[in-house]
Amino acid sequence: MSDDTMQLVIIRHGQSEWNKLNLFTGWTDVDLTQEGRAEAAAGGRALAEAGFDFDVCYTSRLKRAIHTLDIVLAEMDREWLPVVKTWKLNERHYGALQGLNKADAAAEHGEEQVLVWRRSFDVRPPALEPGDERDPHAQDMYRDVPADELPYTECLKDCIARAWPYFEEVIRPQMLAGKRVLIAAHGNSLRSLVMKLEGLTPEQILKVNIPTGVPLVYTFDRDLNVLDKHYIGDADAIAAKIDAVADQGKARG
Amino acid sequence: MSDDTMQLVIIRHGQSEWNKLNLFTGWTDVDLTQEGRAEAAAGGRALAEAGFDFDVCYTSRLKRAIHTLDIVLAEMDREWLPVVKTWKLNERHYGALQGLNKADAAAEHGEEQVLVWRRSFDVRPPALEPGDERDPHAQDMYRDVPADELPYTECLKDCIARAWPYFEEVIRPQMLAGKRVLIAAHGNSLRSLVMKLEGLTPEQILKVNIPTGVPLVYTFDRDLNVLDKHYIGDADAIAAKIDAVADQGKARG
Repeated sequence: MSDDTMQLVIIRHGQSEWNKLNLFTGWTDVDLTQEGRAEAAAGGRALAEAGFDFDVCYTSRLKRAIHTLDIVLAEMDREWLPVVKTWKLNERHYGALQGLNKADAAAEHGEEQVLVWRRSFDVRPPALEPGDERDPHAQDMYRDVPADELPYTECLKDCIARAWPYFEEVIRPQMLAGKRVLIAAHGNSLRSLVMKLEGLTPEQILKVNIPTGVPLVYTFDRDLNVLDKHYIGDADAIAAKIDAVADQGKARG
Repeated sequence: MSDDTMQLVIIRHGQSEWNKLNLFTGWTDVDLTQEGRAEAAAGGRALAEAGFDFDVCYTSRLKRAIHTLDIVLAEMDREWLPVVKTWKLNERHYGALQGLNKADAAAEHGEEQVLVWRRSFDVRPPALEPGDERDPHAQDMYRDVPADELPYTECLKDCIARAWPYFEEVIRPQMLAGKRVLIAAHGNSLRSLVMKLEGLTPEQILKVNIPTGVPLVYTFDRDLNVLDKHYIGDADAIAAKIDAVADQGKARG
């Protein structure tokens, strides 16, 4: 990386317990499966083998992203790097759908309606009732967050509205100061960043599928224009993962 | 905890690969053994069962302490807590003895001399030569640390001279602001804090044995006078651990 460019690497967590069970997860704090841990380890090894290094790492407050980052750093022998955990990089909040499986959600709300919640840019799923056991206002994890900032549900647009300002206000200044940044997060919080970084439209970002556990490397000029974007790891394995994510979308759709 | 008191919990990492091999470790970045991980998990469960909670955690840059903290937080379902990793809480640097086993060190330097390095307050082991592969100046892990702050060897007094100011300047203000602090670190960096917190003499601190993986809870008044000090966990198991550490000291001596 020359002095005129900036590097950012993002990685999506691998399979979680609820991915496996096909449940709407959102802010539910479920752990990685063994397969998810193996995906994270493969991503970390790929970064180590390609000679990557970092100065500071960001992740969400959810353990599936935190453990992904921990595993990546262990594979890189970089456990000592500073790590910042922020709820602003949490997965999109899935409201009252959290904990339902796809079939139950369709039975309760109709298949068409569930599809709209899953695939639209700005239509929110039904909100949690305040006091629901899933309400983040009642959870220790968010006790330091101002109550009016915590969601009861989110569409992708809402997720962008918290994740992107965090990137602009906290992460970008680190990059401008020459720090190499690694972000381990979730499908939709990473999509939020990708949409803004690449200047995509709502229609375009809804078609972007970020594979799990595969490091995605961006190179920018000093004005944050994308100069290069590529995945790190075995090309065939990455292609298969991207197809798998896309097929999953079709099957579910 | 009332508003007039402050809580601090410290925990020493469990068995590492080099503890097991009976090698001088110091700043060598070796991992925990399975037994060491189990010790950390037991400590975390004890804290969870006793209802403890924290606002911020500190550890060293060495993976045996970082992994101990990670395991404790996982057992407490508190992976999301902020963690600060600082070299100021690293183990005492053991200089050119690092990587030697106790027998080789005795053969090379004489048993009496090795005993002096291990048991004295202010006599340093032989220093590393600059450029030695063990020299922290040559290691990525310390690339952000001013060169003149990094040691080539340390006695306990040197370890105190870096660990205690860090406590006073960084950790104590957090406690005074009402934050509940957890520190996961090493035998001698924790001894450094214990000596100052309890106002012990050099002779007294050399006799203090902190058991591995057992949370030690301090309660202070606002002037940092110790009001209470106790271990958390099964009383018999803790007593056995303290005896084991003391016996180990005798056997090695």
